[in-house]
Amino acid sequence: MAKSLDERIREIEDRLEIYNLIASHPPSADTGSRAHVQNAWAQDGTFDRGSEFGGPLRQHATAGGVDNPEHMRAVGQGLAHFAGLPYVRIDGDSAFAISYLQILVPDRVGPEFDVPNHGKTRGFHVHRVSANRWDFVRTPEGWRIKGRRLRPLDGSKPARDILLGTFAE
Amino acid sequence: MAKSLDERIREIEDRLEIYNLIASHPPSADTGSRAHVQNAWAQDGTFDRGSEFGGPLRQHATAGGVDNPEHMRAVGQGLAHFAGLPYVRIDGDSAFAISYLQILVPDRVGPEFDVPNHGKTRGFHVHRVSANRWDFVRTPEGWRIKGRRLRPLDGSKPARDILLGTFAE
Amino acid sequence: MAKSLDERIREIEDRLEIYNLIASHPPSADTGSRAHVQNAWAQDGTFDRGSEFGGPLRQHATAGGVDNPEHMRAVGQGLAHFAGLPYVRIDGDSAFAISYLQILVPDRVGPEFDVPNHGKTRGFHVHRVSANRWDFVRTPEGWRIKGRRLRPLDGSKPARDILLGTFAE
Repeated sequence: MAKSLDERIREIEDRLEIYNLIASHPPSADTGSRAHVQNAWAQDGTFDRGSEFGGPLRQHATAGGVDNPEHMRAVGQGLAHFAGLPYVRIDGDSAFAISYLQILVPDRVGPEFDVPNHGKTRGFHVHRVSANRWDFVRTPEGWRIKGRRLRPLDGSKPARDILLGTFAE
Repeated sequence: MAKSLDERIREIEDRLEIYNLIASHPPSADTGSRAHVQNAWAQDGTFDRGSEFGGPLRQHATAGGVDNPEHMRAVGQGLAHFAGLPYVRIDGDSAFAISYLQILVPDRVGPEFDVPNHGKTRGFHVHRVSANRWDFVRTPEGWRIKGRRLRPLDGSKPARDILLGTFAE
Repeated sequence: MAKSLDERIREIEDRLEIYNLIASHPPSADTGSRAHVQNAWAQDGTFDRGSEFGGPLRQHATAGGVDNPEHMRAVGQGLAHFAGLPYVRIDGDSAFAISYLQILVPDRVGPEFDVPNHGKTRGFHVHRVSANRWDFVRTPEGWRIKGRRLRPLDGSKPARDILLGTFAE
């Protein structure tokens, strides 16, 4: 059955709202703000960075790192989460995205580069590159993240499994 | 003549479908999946990585690298295609995009960086940065890529020519 | 009061137009084209790269660097501005975006990496990573940039202040 204009517009609005949810994560991570957890995550949503970082954790319980002095030390040294263009698919009241994320930090040991009209710096070091899977749920207050799982793109299978979700039926 | 609501919505849906086509390329390239070629490319579409890589090739014939053992060796070592925000313009049943793409690989020779709350790694090496032009065509099954051309952003003219397509009338 | 279908579609069109404004900046910066300044900037718009680069400057007066021989020298050596997924919020006839931007240049001093099926290169150096705030205004000719401010993500407060704009009421 053909969708109504209203339904088509709503699906587009859903998509753009999800783009903004993904785009608002780095500003939260790189400042240690609690805002993204409060605005974007479902109460029982879990964030899974892999066994190296304790496996799946309830995001509201950890407050997105703001209560973690180690995280705030990284913020103070310079920390940049950099999000690529995500793949997003919506199915009624649930949705998922597959995205790439870089984490960069100022390079304090490498050679200085002097680029005309762009200053002299030691530049930045790409510390991590990960494959991310986000699962979203529609709530009365808008779309919320109910799960996020990431794995490093180091050639191992878990990251490739996340990426292949793009092509799942 | 003013566009109807339906026409305006369709153009927006076109735009979002093209975003997803571009966003689904890296998950295919970084896993060696055939899916992107089958889902996203026109049968006669050509991919041109420049003379260093054999010039324009029919993408369906090469199956997007999955039949290439060298490509799969790169995937096994860790390979990340990272897509920036693309510029996209639609004109009826054809469209084009200008985008930036990084290719990153794990750095196996550089110094280790220990970032608080983000682990210790040698990080990633940005192996390539390219300017990409994508040409799309509307088909009964949806938008398909009929051509993609990329050139390295190393200061040479071909990459700049691709970028200037953004401002063509 | 509920928005009309027309109003909802217009807000979506606004969002996509702003995505394209942001996406068309790198192709201009990396070629030295005047096009982005002429097409995307309000006449009195100001671009503020910080005190290291002279503080806020009227973008039309500087023509976006094209009149700056130093900038063109950087273009000739290879220069890539790489834009991440922006956060965008629209409020009637004004809008803002918070985005991340990398500047990369070819690495001429580091070791060569040979990646199967992806050639041998010294790769690229991430010269800068910045937090950007864009302010937009609707004009009869479309959305225009009235201000852009960026600061390096080196751990200092100004960049974090820009990022926190994402969560401002």
